[in-house]
This record gives sequence, structure tokens and C-alpha cells, in this order.
Amino acid sequence: MDYSKYIKNVPNFPVEGIQFKDITPLIGDGQAFKACIDEFVDFAKEKQANKIVGPDARGFIVGAPVAYAMAIPFVPIRKPGKLPRETYSYDYDLEYGSNSLSMHKDAIVKGDKVVIMDDLLATGGTLEATIKLVEEAGGQVVGLGFIIELVDLNARNKLDKYPIKVLLKY
Amino acid sequence: MDYSKYIKNVPNFPVEGIQFKDITPLIGDGQAFKACIDEFVDFAKEKQANKIVGPDARGFIVGAPVAYAMAIPFVPIRKPGKLPRETYSYDYDLEYGSNSLSMHKDAIVKGDKVVIMDDLLATGGTLEATIKLVEEAGGQVVGLGFIIELVDLNARNKLDKYPIKVLLKY
Repeated sequence: MDYSKYIKNVPNFPVEGIQFKDITPLIGDGQAFKACIDEFVDFAKEKQANKIVGPDARGFIVGAPVAYAMAIPFVPIRKPGKLPRETYSYDYDLEYGSNSLSMHKDAIVKGDKVVIMDDLLATGGTLEATIKLVEEAGGQVVGLGFIIELVDLNARNKLDKYPIKVLLKY
Repeated sequence: MDYSKYIKNVPNFPVEGIQFKDITPLIGDGQAFKACIDEFVDFAKEKQANKIVGPDARGFIVGAPVAYAMAIPFVPIRKPGKLPRETYSYDYDLEYGSNSLSMHKDAIVKGDKVVIMDDLLATGGTLEATIKLVEEAGGQVVGLGFIIELVDLNARNKLDKYPIKVLLKY
């Protein structure tokens, strides 16, 4: 399926100079959304993932359906103050600004095979933080899945030890 | 399935006096997560929903898989500044604090039959805001689905014209 027609380019959002790739038309088309998620289900099965991890908030939209389809756990990565029990936390820089992410300490156990899902691979900051949280808990990251990769930001250079599945490159 | 064993009660989170119901153990169990989502899929099919709407952020975890399973659109309701195109917005009071929510104007069209999904029905503030956004766009709310209802907060009094499906009551 050609997913590109479901992505809207929004100039200067959220700040001047950023070309925001809006995925809401993609998830707003039932057939396209299903086809997109099914591609990541195939990828996660091939990688023998037993858990899907997704960062707050759009990572939930793509990650939770993959976990549901495979009947395996979904692990949310959240901003500070959102997870109520003991967490691992990690601070990092964003494409615009900075952030901190947390994961419940009991969400991942040693030996877990994890696919991390998000809508967008930009600078890779969110991804690196998420990988660190999973690995700190003893999990093995067996794959990374994104709807969109912004190739000029060169995130792959930092992530070359992990299998990556991407549907669209800009 | 008895889902209650997958819900952790966390006292005094996020503020003193609140008994937080943590759903992460439920979505962290593949079979329980699948069974839970399947119940909402049955509900949304029975109500002939053609779109699933979920508020940021835990509404994404429960809403997106229901939309995926039915191959129908998922519409995210987000906090201010997150949706890049023209939105409807609504301000409301929360169980603790206040909030504002937005929805893309083109996400819902007149005649859409919408099931709104979230993890928790507490005071109903988030839900009322979400209903208003859907109805302002011309959509018909045909059902509301929640994993948990906090019955003492009486949100149902405000929502009695809508069919509600809840898995657990506290």
C-alpha cells in the first residue's frame, strides 16, 4: 500500500522551520491503519518479540494495536509523573527541546525480546532513551518500527545495531 | 475473565488522597489485554461504530487497538499544541486540576457513529469534553467504553443518554 497519500505535511509546526509529518489522516483511514499495523505485526513476529514498547503518546497509537494483534504485552514509556509505581528514568534531547522518559521497573524482565514502536524516527533521541530503559531492565531490543523516518536527521547512524522497519522515508 | 487481579491500586498518586488504579499490569499481560480489547470490539460492533475516538494518552492504548481490530479510523483527542492542523478545542475540569482538549476539525464528519474509549471513567470531565468535540463536528456518540469506572464519582449521572460499557467498577 502507498501510505504517503495519508501523510499531511504541515510547515512550521510545532516551531518555525520544522516540516511536521501529520499521521492522523493515516490512522484516520481504517484500511490504511490496519494495513500499516499488520506490517509491523509481521515484523515483530519475524523478530520473535514477546513485548511491544511504545513511547507516550503517538507510540501508543502504533504500538498498542501491534501488541493486541499478537496477544503480547504492551509497555508504555511515559513522561515524568505519569507512571504510579517504581520506574527507571532517562533524560534526553529532542528534535526541538528536551525530555525525560520513564518505564515501570517491572514492565520488562531479563530475556524479554522487545520491539519498540513509534510513529516517527527523527533525531532518534526518544528512541535512544527508550532503548536505554529497556536494556537497563534486562530486555533485548530485537527491532524498531516507525511509520516515518526523516532520513536527513541521520538517526540510523546511532541505531545501526538494531533491525529497523520503516514504511515511509522523507 | 476476571480483570481485577491485573489492576494495581496505588495510594496517594498523583496527589494525596487519590487511590490511583494502575492498568499497566492489565495491558502488560498479553492474554488479558487481548480479551479486554475484544470486549470493546464486540461493543463497538454492536453499536455499529464507524470511528473510535480516544483521549490522550491512555485512551490511545485502549482505543487504537479497537479501531485496528475493526479496520475503522482512530481519532486522537489531544492536549493543546499537539495537533498540527485546524482543531475544535474544549476546556474542562479534571478529578485533580484542569485541562483543555483538541480534535482535528476534519477527523469527524456529520453522520459518523462514534465510540469513545478511555481507560478510566472518573468524574467524567475528560469524557464530557470529548463528547462535546465529537458532537460539535456533527458526530453521533453511540457508545462509551472504559476499563474502570470509579462509581462514587457519579459520572454516569451526566452521561445517562449514552450506552456505557465498563469492565471493572470500584
